[in-house]
Amino acid sequence: MKFIDRLLEEVDRKKSHVCVGLDPRLEQIPQEIKDWAKDKYGITIEGATKAIEVFNRGIIDAVKDYVPAVKPQVAFYEQYGYLGIKAYEDTIAYAKDQGLLVVGDAKRNDIGSTAEAYAAGHLGEVDFWGNKLESKSDSLTVTPYLGSDGIEPFLKRCEEFDRGVFILVKTSNPSSGELQDLLLEGGEKIYEKLARLVNLWGEKLIGDRGYSSVGAVVGATYPKEAQVLRKVMSNNYFLVPGYGAQGGGGEDVVPAFNDDGYGALVNSSRGIIFAYQKEEYSNDYKEAAKESAIAMRDDINSALAKEER
Amino acid sequence: MKFIDRLLEEVDRKKSHVCVGLDPRLEQIPQEIKDWAKDKYGITIEGATKAIEVFNRGIIDAVKDYVPAVKPQVAFYEQYGYLGIKAYEDTIAYAKDQGLLVVGDAKRNDIGSTAEAYAAGHLGEVDFWGNKLESKSDSLTVTPYLGSDGIEPFLKRCEEFDRGVFILVKTSNPSSGELQDLLLEGGEKIYEKLARLVNLWGEKLIGDRGYSSVGAVVGATYPKEAQVLRKVMSNNYFLVPGYGAQGGGGEDVVPAFNDDGYGALVNSSRGIIFAYQKEEYSNDYKEAAKESAIAMRDDINSALAKEER
Repeated sequence: MKFIDRLLEEVDRKKSHVCVGLDPRLEQIPQEIKDWAKDKYGITIEGATKAIEVFNRGIIDAVKDYVPAVKPQVAFYEQYGYLGIKAYEDTIAYAKDQGLLVVGDAKRNDIGSTAEAYAAGHLGEVDFWGNKLESKSDSLTVTPYLGSDGIEPFLKRCEEFDRGVFILVKTSNPSSGELQDLLLEGGEKIYEKLARLVNLWGEKLIGDRGYSSVGAVVGATYPKEAQVLRKVMSNNYFLVPGYGAQGGGGEDVVPAFNDDGYGALVNSSRGIIFAYQKEEYSNDYKEAAKESAIAMRDDINSALAKEER
Repeated sequence: MKFIDRLLEEVDRKKSHVCVGLDPRLEQIPQEIKDWAKDKYGITIEGATKAIEVFNRGIIDAVKDYVPAVKPQVAFYEQYGYLGIKAYEDTIAYAKDQGLLVVGDAKRNDIGSTAEAYAAGHLGEVDFWGNKLESKSDSLTVTPYLGSDGIEPFLKRCEEFDRGVFILVKTSNPSSGELQDLLLEGGEKIYEKLARLVNLWGEKLIGDRGYSSVGAVVGATYPKEAQVLRKVMSNNYFLVPGYGAQGGGGEDVVPAFNDDGYGALVNSSRGIIFAYQKEEYSNDYKEAAKESAIAMRDDINSALAKEER
C-alpha cells in the first residue's frame, strides 16, 4: 500500500492530524532517565544516547494511540556521532513496531549519483555483497535546491518501496523568505514555482484517495502562504512544522488543509515531548506527552470543525 | 589559525589545488580488500564498512603529499547506517592525522535551533553532562534554502573553532538550473543573488590573506557561470566539483580562480580513487590514485600557467 494511503488510514483510525517531533535535547530529558544511564554507562556518549533511546521509547508508548506519526529530527542524533545514529535507528524501529509511521527529518539532497545513496539508505535498500540492508524510515524530508535530478532517486524509491517524501517549499523559520519569497520574472515567488514542481513530481505517486506520496513542508507560521500553496498543491500532503513552540496554533494550520478535512500532518516537538516542564501538564513526562498530544489533536480537530460550520 | 589560512598554507606547501573526494562505492573497491574484510567479519555491514575504512586509509596514504584536502561524501557512509558513520569518523580522523584538511560533504541545513545541532556536531563541540564531544571535520558543505538563520549557527562555529563552510551556490548537476538559474525581478539570477549573500556572510571570517572561511560550491561543469561568480564573490574560496567523471577539465576550472592563482579547491572523486580501473593508470589502486592525483594537479597548474601568459 502506498505511503500516503497508509498515512490516511492511520489519520482516520486515530482521528488525529498530529505528528510528534522526536528532538531529544539531552539537557531537557528527565533527570531519572539520565541518572539511570549515567549509572549504567558512565558519563559517556553511549550513556547519553542510551538515555535518548529510553526517553524516546517512553514518548512513543505515551502518544501512540493519539497520533499517526512521529518525526525524529536527525540533527539531534547525528550530533552524537555514530552512536547517535544508532539511537536514531533504534527509535525508528521501535516506533514502527508500535504501529506508528515515521517521517525521517533529514532534509537530505545532493546531485544524482549521491542522491541515489541517500535515497537507498533512507527509503530503499542498500546492497552489500549480494545482501540487502533495508532502510527504516517510511518517509523523508528532502531539500530542492539542486532541481529534479536530485529528487528523482527519492521518487524512484517511493514507487518501489511504498515510501514518501516531503519536499521543502515554505519553511517555518523567520528568514525563510530571504530566498523562498523572492519574486521571479513573471510575478511568481520562488516557493510558488517550487510548489508547481512538487505537484508535478507527485503525479506518478497518487494513491487510492487522491493524495500523493510526494508531500511538501509548509510552515504553520505562514498561514497566508499555506492558503495559496494549498491550491497549487491540491493533492500533495503538507508536513506542517511550527505548531506550538514556534508560534502557530490550531487556527493557523487550518489553511494547510483541504475542504475534505485532510491534507496536513501537523508537527509539534518540544511542545509535546517536554510538556512535563510546563505547569499545565503532569510532571511525569509520559503522562504530560499524552495529555499535550490529546490537547493538540483536539485543538486542530475543533479548528477544522469550526471552519466547516 | 583560520580554516582558510590553513587551507592556503597547505595549497602552497603542496603546490596543488586538488581535493580528493572519498566516495567509496563498495562495488568498486579492490577485490583483495573486500576478500580480507569478508574473511575477517563475514558478509556483514561491519565487514562492508571495515573494507571502506581500509580502502580510504590506502587512498589517503597515496595522495597525502600531493593534495591539500580530502572530501568524504557523507551519503556513501550514511547509507550503511551507524557503522557507516563510524567509518566516516574513522576516515576523517585518519586524514587529519596524515596532515590533510577535511571537507565534510554533507550539504546539511535546517531551521535555527536544528542547524545549531548540525553545526555543533560537524564543526563545533557537543556537550553531554559537562563533557565535550569534539567534532571532526575542518569544514562542511551547507545548503542555503532556509536563509540566514539556517546559516548563522554554522558561521558561529567557524569563528569559534576556526572551521569553514562551503555554501551551495551553483551546483555541477544537469538540472541545477531548474531553480538556481531562474531570473528574479530586476534581472538577477537566483544563484547570483545567493552569491551576494554568501559574500556578505563571509565578511566576518576573512583571514590573513584576504580570503574568507565562508566559501561557495560552484560546479566545474558551468565555467561561464563560474566567471561571473568569481567577480561577485572575489574573496570567497570555491569548492569546485565536477572535474573528471562529471566532464570538467583543467581549462574549465580556470574561471573559478582569481588572478592571484588562488580561489578554488577542485574536487575529483571517482577519477582518482578508482583510477586503478582505467587503462592509463597502474592496476594497484594506491599507485593509480597517486598517479591520477599528480596528473590532475599538473593539469590544473598548467592550465593556470597558460592563462597567466
